[in-house]
Amino acid sequence: MEIKVVHQIMEWNEDHSDEIKAKLREKRVCLVNIMGSPGAGKTSVITSVIKAMSDKFKIGVIEGDIAGRIDAEHMKRLGVPVVQLNTDGACHIEAMSIENILPDFDLDELDVIFVENIGNLVCPAEFNIGESFRVALLSIPEGDDKVEKYPLMFQTTDALILNKYDMIEYFDFDAERVIRGAKEINPDIDVFKVSNKTGAGLSEFTAWLGGRIEESINA
Amino acid sequence: MEIKVVHQIMEWNEDHSDEIKAKLREKRVCLVNIMGSPGAGKTSVITSVIKAMSDKFKIGVIEGDIAGRIDAEHMKRLGVPVVQLNTDGACHIEAMSIENILPDFDLDELDVIFVENIGNLVCPAEFNIGESFRVALLSIPEGDDKVEKYPLMFQTTDALILNKYDMIEYFDFDAERVIRGAKEINPDIDVFKVSNKTGAGLSEFTAWLGGRIEESINA
Repeated sequence: MEIKVVHQIMEWNEDHSDEIKAKLREKRVCLVNIMGSPGAGKTSVITSVIKAMSDKFKIGVIEGDIAGRIDAEHMKRLGVPVVQLNTDGACHIEAMSIENILPDFDLDELDVIFVENIGNLVCPAEFNIGESFRVALLSIPEGDDKVEKYPLMFQTTDALILNKYDMIEYFDFDAERVIRGAKEINPDIDVFKVSNKTGAGLSEFTAWLGGRIEESINA
Repeated sequence: MEIKVVHQIMEWNEDHSDEIKAKLREKRVCLVNIMGSPGAGKTSVITSVIKAMSDKFKIGVIEGDIAGRIDAEHMKRLGVPVVQLNTDGACHIEAMSIENILPDFDLDELDVIFVENIGNLVCPAEFNIGESFRVALLSIPEGDDKVEKYPLMFQTTDALILNKYDMIEYFDFDAERVIRGAKEINPDIDVFKVSNKTGAGLSEFTAWLGGRIEESINA
């Protein structure tokens, strides 16, 4: 299975997210926009989720990267359909790129597409890509002051994963500060303490994720 | 953020960076653009550098953040002149903002201004802010695949700090992969393995930094 690499085309001021939503609703496919800083653990968590949920859902992946296809090569080994989207410098994924990519998937054979956005705690939060819902990751080594510094990401996400939680003893990280700050600007946010390395907290997250995917498919 | 707009802003940005450079040359002040992901350790390294170098250089700081003034409050306690620049959502600092801020400093009383850019491994690298040179940080927990994924940052920086190096035993991080990748696209890059927490590697970095500041002031 060859990995398809697609380059992002940017069109001034065009929002294609409504068309994407209509298409996905028709095909009963859920699109999950997964965001976070470089190295927060997006690829690793998606990998764990695929392993945990592939008996229940038919899964596809869109790997967003500025350059390269490291993560797509990784996903390919899991046996799921994957498309690599290269933004060629751009700091976020745009809806139009998702619309261009959808025909590369057999949507009748999918329940959910995970979109791994560009590693960036800022810009991706500004752009609706037609997603059913959002998941943001913040890893413990990044520090506990990120809600105050990068509010939009935490304000617009549906779930927040505090990843690399096994590292909490090595870093000065006050999880309650993050949770309190996030809930202040986003009262409905669901927060999960996860160590993708040890597996701790993953089952709570996948239970939540499975529920949201089913809600979305059956809406 | 469409290509057309980025191009316009960059042209506009370039004009102002020339004026900044002229002004700083006249006043013999060096401007250092410090960049990296959220949580890479920019504030902590700047803090250590100030403590190590304040007997030798008169230092000022510009703290760039999307929102808030956590880092500026921190710097203020070190007794250095500091200005907080809030970009109000924007993912990078622009030269015009630096130009607007310079009159807030007494440039006759400064040798160097450290600019802590927005925590972002992508966008800040695209924008010249009139800096004398650049320092990029990559922290060990972020992973060793970042040069391939975010090449521009590594291509355009003068120095690269591999920070949180004390954590290398806990993460699957191949430092040689990063150094090799960075030197491939930027042969003149100087790389420093630093643990700001233990202090390891800081003296090598400050020696380099002091040399570059003097070069810049006496140019």
